[in-house]
Amino acid sequence: MIVGGVAAGASAAVRARRLSEVADIVLLERGEHVSFANCGLPYHIGGEISKHDDLLVVTPDYLRQTFNIDVRTGNEAVSIDRDRKLLTIHDYVGDRIYQESYDKLVLCQGAAPVTPPLPGIDHPRLFTLRNIPDMDTIKAIVDAGARRAVVIGANYIGLEMVEALSRRGMHIDLVEMQRQLMPSLDAEMARELECHLEDKGIRLHLDTIAESFTDGAGGIRVALNNGEKLEADMALLAIGVRPETDMALNAGLETGISGGLRVDRHMRTSDPDIYAAGDMVEVSHTVTGEPSLIPLAGPANRQGRIVANHVMGRDSTYGSTQGTSILKVFEMTAACTGASEKLLKKLNIPYRKIYLHPYGHASYYPGTSQMHMKLLYGPGLGKVLGAQIVGRDGVDKRIDILATAIRGDITVYDMRELELAYAPPYGSARDPVNYAGFVAANDLRGDVEFWYAEDYPGKTAGGLLLDVRTKKEFRAWHIEGAVNVPLHEIRSRLDEIRGLQQGRPLFLYCLVGIRSYLAYRILRLHGFEHLSTLAGGKKTFRSVHR
Amino acid sequence: MIVGGVAAGASAAVRARRLSEVADIVLLERGEHVSFANCGLPYHIGGEISKHDDLLVVTPDYLRQTFNIDVRTGNEAVSIDRDRKLLTIHDYVGDRIYQESYDKLVLCQGAAPVTPPLPGIDHPRLFTLRNIPDMDTIKAIVDAGARRAVVIGANYIGLEMVEALSRRGMHIDLVEMQRQLMPSLDAEMARELECHLEDKGIRLHLDTIAESFTDGAGGIRVALNNGEKLEADMALLAIGVRPETDMALNAGLETGISGGLRVDRHMRTSDPDIYAAGDMVEVSHTVTGEPSLIPLAGPANRQGRIVANHVMGRDSTYGSTQGTSILKVFEMTAACTGASEKLLKKLNIPYRKIYLHPYGHASYYPGTSQMHMKLLYGPGLGKVLGAQIVGRDGVDKRIDILATAIRGDITVYDMRELELAYAPPYGSARDPVNYAGFVAANDLRGDVEFWYAEDYPGKTAGGLLLDVRTKKEFRAWHIEGAVNVPLHEIRSRLDEIRGLQQGRPLFLYCLVGIRSYLAYRILRLHGFEHLSTLAGGKKTFRSVHR
Repeated sequence: MIVGGVAAGASAAVRARRLSEVADIVLLERGEHVSFANCGLPYHIGGEISKHDDLLVVTPDYLRQTFNIDVRTGNEAVSIDRDRKLLTIHDYVGDRIYQESYDKLVLCQGAAPVTPPLPGIDHPRLFTLRNIPDMDTIKAIVDAGARRAVVIGANYIGLEMVEALSRRGMHIDLVEMQRQLMPSLDAEMARELECHLEDKGIRLHLDTIAESFTDGAGGIRVALNNGEKLEADMALLAIGVRPETDMALNAGLETGISGGLRVDRHMRTSDPDIYAAGDMVEVSHTVTGEPSLIPLAGPANRQGRIVANHVMGRDSTYGSTQGTSILKVFEMTAACTGASEKLLKKLNIPYRKIYLHPYGHASYYPGTSQMHMKLLYGPGLGKVLGAQIVGRDGVDKRIDILATAIRGDITVYDMRELELAYAPPYGSARDPVNYAGFVAANDLRGDVEFWYAEDYPGKTAGGLLLDVRTKKEFRAWHIEGAVNVPLHEIRSRLDEIRGLQQGRPLFLYCLVGIRSYLAYRILRLHGFEHLSTLAGGKKTFRSVHR
Repeated sequence: MIVGGVAAGASAAVRARRLSEVADIVLLERGEHVSFANCGLPYHIGGEISKHDDLLVVTPDYLRQTFNIDVRTGNEAVSIDRDRKLLTIHDYVGDRIYQESYDKLVLCQGAAPVTPPLPGIDHPRLFTLRNIPDMDTIKAIVDAGARRAVVIGANYIGLEMVEALSRRGMHIDLVEMQRQLMPSLDAEMARELECHLEDKGIRLHLDTIAESFTDGAGGIRVALNNGEKLEADMALLAIGVRPETDMALNAGLETGISGGLRVDRHMRTSDPDIYAAGDMVEVSHTVTGEPSLIPLAGPANRQGRIVANHVMGRDSTYGSTQGTSILKVFEMTAACTGASEKLLKKLNIPYRKIYLHPYGHASYYPGTSQMHMKLLYGPGLGKVLGAQIVGRDGVDKRIDILATAIRGDITVYDMRELELAYAPPYGSARDPVNYAGFVAANDLRGDVEFWYAEDYPGKTAGGLLLDVRTKKEFRAWHIEGAVNVPLHEIRSRLDEIRGLQQGRPLFLYCLVGIRSYLAYRILRLHGFEHLSTLAGGKKTFRSVHR
């Protein structure tokens, strides 16, 4: 008996059937649709996916015919009697309550959008987006000519909906409680996305809370905590999800500190006859080992499969979740895997970090641009702890290589030697991932020392800032107080630099960190001390100090 | 003293400088250019890279000014006196022969296009493409209005040039000695590329040898071994490269069985004061362990760096080369990593294989298509031995993930659990790489048994071919003698199938292998024996049997 027919539930059902032709497999789904493309919902509203039914990847009839599964849509499980192994079910279609017994129960109830008890939270023009009916409702409003929307929450769904509604010609106000977009990224990595959204005409309200929803001229008025009132045709609440554990909790099943249902490595809850999988369960974080809630489609699918294996008597275990995720918003891509710097800090896990800005492919071949890449790694053996990339071309590829590196215990030293496919349209002889390995290994070996944008102005105040870019670049912008000695003049101006330094720390920088590294090597080999080079150069600096 | 200033040589020079400000570093380059974008040459001829000087990534002056390197272009090393540690150099600029002593000599002489002693091999309209002057010569002919070209050799450079010349409006005859394009792929994987080239109007002459070159109406006449004579404005010879080891051999340095210069793990030749790096050296193959010649830009760059490290007293070693490579030709991409099936066969290395055809990203999101993927893995632990992918979107990403998996000792079992970035524009909840892991693990676990396209018609003759696609698909095409039972009818027609089978082997197939796998599971769980399912389905079958 499987409760919930989307990612984990449908995976569990079909896998179970592939392992047994005699099992009675019942799939309960309170909605009308099973295994629909929930990640595709914003794209139908935006118009990229024009056909509504393209999102119905698998239909109940297909599961019945091909997999001999007893699919019951419009049927919601409401309570579990664990002693008698009975499930009470509300059948909305037949308008009745009934009971079914189970040998093994599999809970795949997912996570629901968070809706805090704010004034007007039930306003008819305030929506959340979780399923096909939600999508249809929102799309109908847009199709009817809606002009303005307020999107609350700047994480994956919120930002995908910003793009979708903007594509439909709407004016968007984006409200986010935190000081940054995309909380899975570190703040400085989200900056480029913020600029990109502004360039696309999206009005950002960061560090801002939506406090109430009332009737307005266009349909809804959203009041912000800074006093501003936003008039719109509709508002979307996308501030996060919480696991749907109510029925499990009522049945006395245990949850973990994250709020997700606790399961063992076979995805069994505290009741050995009840399994759970997907967004409602607590997982172990691959990098930190902490119990975590990481709602993602890929892990949900794999967990559903593992549940079916174990139910059918196979030894099958789920390892951990590392939080690999990706967002497309307009022309940009943002992706991450593993732990963020803020997470490592919070858990007091020692780390080192670098920033770099490599091109997606050979810079002389058209169609590429510099990506913003951050790599976090352990100070000892150079274990990869996390990566974040924001850019245009080639972002998804590099995050997947790094996600694979984390699983393969590939260190930053090994990253230098990865043999990746190179031709000018796809990469560089030294791929961004190799390059990150070189920089990180140089750091760990002590061949270079970094200073970071956040060291300015505090830590840099007692030293000399040395800008090694060209005179032209220096004239256009430089850090206040910096002295300009272009890289190719360094060797001939060593005495002058020594005179300027006067024993103080020397803080080198350039545009992305390559020239300042070369300057660092020259100066150090000529006996200079107290040297460091700005990680990520001006490009990262400007993401921190705007 | 470094001989050769392109990939390995230039990398060695700049790395050496980063480690020492006192070393005298001399870079000898017989040509005019150092560290140019040799992989970009076809794209300037084709017009994608419009500016000639974009290919001059690094200039001699830049190396002089920024790295204090004594760059001597137009200077060719001609002989080595190992006892006296003297290099004899021909200075074409100063028109003189002179000698220089060295403490450490680094040979980075690369590999030259193979030019067999055929009649007319020196014909003025027969070209090879290795450097900027070669490119300029060919481009001048094209710019002057050349209409027809014969390209001989269908490997990377040959195919990139086919696209380049075709983009310029030329008619192309492509002549290849082997029965397939791209010898690094297995033959069946090259088929889609062959169709694509034909669709683009390229005339293919496979299994054909160019025998002589004489004057012709347009400029050159190429005679083929089948008697045909091709008239063209120009011909390009791109049948492979051979390491430039003449000087090294004359100096008594050892070569390996591959013909490349033999080096130790520090890239030292048989003379401890002479190093070598790049396309002229023999490497160990990552998967097979065999001494091999694998000319690639990425490994060349890394080897140059390792040489510099070791010369400067650091312990630095090169591991092996796995042959990760990639080709763009028109709208298609072909890529591979590790060993091919024919290489594994030749070396008697046990392997298993699967074929699959997953989409580059979620099929309901626009802009994707099915790729053709072949995975080779060890029969025991499921070690990944090699992968080949031919398709359109997402090919480069998957080959890089698999290349990383090979380095990280990630097995096909682990591949199932890789957590890759999923949103509809980038992938699927079950990524092609995960999916390949599921299929291969099913194979190793005995949950499925495959038959292969090459088993037809020999091995399949004694059995029953069962086509589980729809009646409509069956009517359009099917394997001769096959019986059609659509997947969803299997359960209701078990007795009928048993009657047809009469104890014979049952060979299932469908379009790509998914439905026939499901049919396999149903039949097996219902007690059927002697079952197997066609790996890769009709799509792979049609690549073998056209």
